[in-house]
Amino acid sequence: MSILVVGSTALDSVKTPFGEMDDALGGSATYFSVSASYFTNINLVAVVGEDFPDNYINLLKKHKVDLKGLQKVPGKTFRWKGQYMYDLNQAETLNTELNVFADFKPRIPEEYCNSEYVFLANIDPELQLEVLKQVKKPKLIACDTMNFWIERKPSQLKKTLKYVDILVINEAEVRQLAGEKNLIKAAKTICSWGPKALVIKRGEYGSLFYFKGQMFSAPAFPLETVSDPTGAGDSFAGGFMGYLAKSRSLKEKDFRRAIIFGSVMASYNVEDFSLNRLKRLDWKQIKQRFLQFRKLTYFDTIK
Amino acid sequence: MSILVVGSTALDSVKTPFGEMDDALGGSATYFSVSASYFTNINLVAVVGEDFPDNYINLLKKHKVDLKGLQKVPGKTFRWKGQYMYDLNQAETLNTELNVFADFKPRIPEEYCNSEYVFLANIDPELQLEVLKQVKKPKLIACDTMNFWIERKPSQLKKTLKYVDILVINEAEVRQLAGEKNLIKAAKTICSWGPKALVIKRGEYGSLFYFKGQMFSAPAFPLETVSDPTGAGDSFAGGFMGYLAKSRSLKEKDFRRAIIFGSVMASYNVEDFSLNRLKRLDWKQIKQRFLQFRKLTYFDTIK
Repeated sequence: MSILVVGSTALDSVKTPFGEMDDALGGSATYFSVSASYFTNINLVAVVGEDFPDNYINLLKKHKVDLKGLQKVPGKTFRWKGQYMYDLNQAETLNTELNVFADFKPRIPEEYCNSEYVFLANIDPELQLEVLKQVKKPKLIACDTMNFWIERKPSQLKKTLKYVDILVINEAEVRQLAGEKNLIKAAKTICSWGPKALVIKRGEYGSLFYFKGQMFSAPAFPLETVSDPTGAGDSFAGGFMGYLAKSRSLKEKDFRRAIIFGSVMASYNVEDFSLNRLKRLDWKQIKQRFLQFRKLTYFDTIK
Repeated sequence: MSILVVGSTALDSVKTPFGEMDDALGGSATYFSVSASYFTNINLVAVVGEDFPDNYINLLKKHKVDLKGLQKVPGKTFRWKGQYMYDLNQAETLNTELNVFADFKPRIPEEYCNSEYVFLANIDPELQLEVLKQVKKPKLIACDTMNFWIERKPSQLKKTLKYVDILVINEAEVRQLAGEKNLIKAAKTICSWGPKALVIKRGEYGSLFYFKGQMFSAPAFPLETVSDPTGAGDSFAGGFMGYLAKSRSLKEKDFRRAIIFGSVMASYNVEDFSLNRLKRLDWKQIKQRFLQFRKLTYFDTIK
């Protein structure tokens, strides 16, 4: 079952204590697509400028990402420049050039309109809603957002959330969006606006899945080397949605496994810069880390 | 199998956004004892002043805590005054009066010297070592410490750690003690000094157990109401050591379960001020939350 993803494609310049890269492949939709491509087929809707390198296009093609929805328009590609200090949870943005992304209007190709799985990466909630109007019979809609939209377009975001099944969002943003410090209460509030479930991302502490008043908790994989956390959240979303689409089932046990597959993909992603680690994964490695997650969290029950 | 615990007994005045209490029962050894008392018998070594209320003594007696090692000396009991703002991870100390605790010299009663399970709560590492010299054939020694000792007595602390099996310590202190930002590398470093395992406490994010190069991760229990986090770490240690002493086994699977029982006791403790929640628990409630932890973390494996 293929997934429609709408979001950004970018050229990132990133510096961390472990190295730096200029104009590397980035963007929320890009990380999501390559991550999810290990599970199912991806239909990408995004925009790039005339300067977008062919080898990045080839990388996406190699992962069988369908590019009919990737608009190439006059101008320069969206660029983000940022750095991380030793606290790898906190990115410091040094420069943002929206370029062609400033006028991005997602056009969903006719053959994508029957997509059953939809991921709205972090873009303007009004554009997210426009996308949903073009999709005919979605089975599962997940979306991401960020503090920028929570602060600037709260009512538009709430309107979009009415149609969303799963909101994928980080812990601080859950509290900010709900205006509530306690995470469970905040999750309840947000779910009263539409979403049936929340994926709460907690960086190096892992994630929580909130579903019908229940919580499922997954740790992040403890790593000795974290090179670059950029894209961890979108890689997570890719593994999460990818597994759900592949399994074609939306039972609670599927969501639990999907959260672990999301955690697996995020953990690989941060091991190298840009998509350098994600692009050379294989199913054996993904499965191996899934089993390591099992070992990391398993304990015998009691009678 | 009984546990010898050496640490502080205190009168705490605590204010949180959810209420306040004056001269409430507190202290590391107190929280540990009452928590562990649900699993096994406890031998307490600590000191109180003449002002220590009888009803607090009675509370300990009710939990069958052996008080032969509780010294009552002229002067006032150790007092701590602190507050928590909405970030319940961070205590702000308003006042500390060491009083009789300033001259505390742990004297281990003869009948405690054969204790097989020993917990050294957070006191001066030189006193911790003095205790270990008095214990004859311990099977398992665990100890806690804090930034105060890491900064002021690093060499004495390292000397004590040579004889310790399990160090129970919070995440920031692991990094501080090892002088290393990466948690796995820091854990390896500390284990090279003596401890066979580390219990790394992460507040609202739960805990990690590091053992022979392996990690086990446990979340904290998501709660809608956290009234007072004071004593969470010592309640955790009580459940952890209590289960190990009760099970009389030190296999990896026992450590995993012990971490969950620690998490259970900590989660109950923070639901009310002082020992108000811990003191009225029963085994059915403990078991129920253990099973909730199982549900919180369980996922089906893959083939």
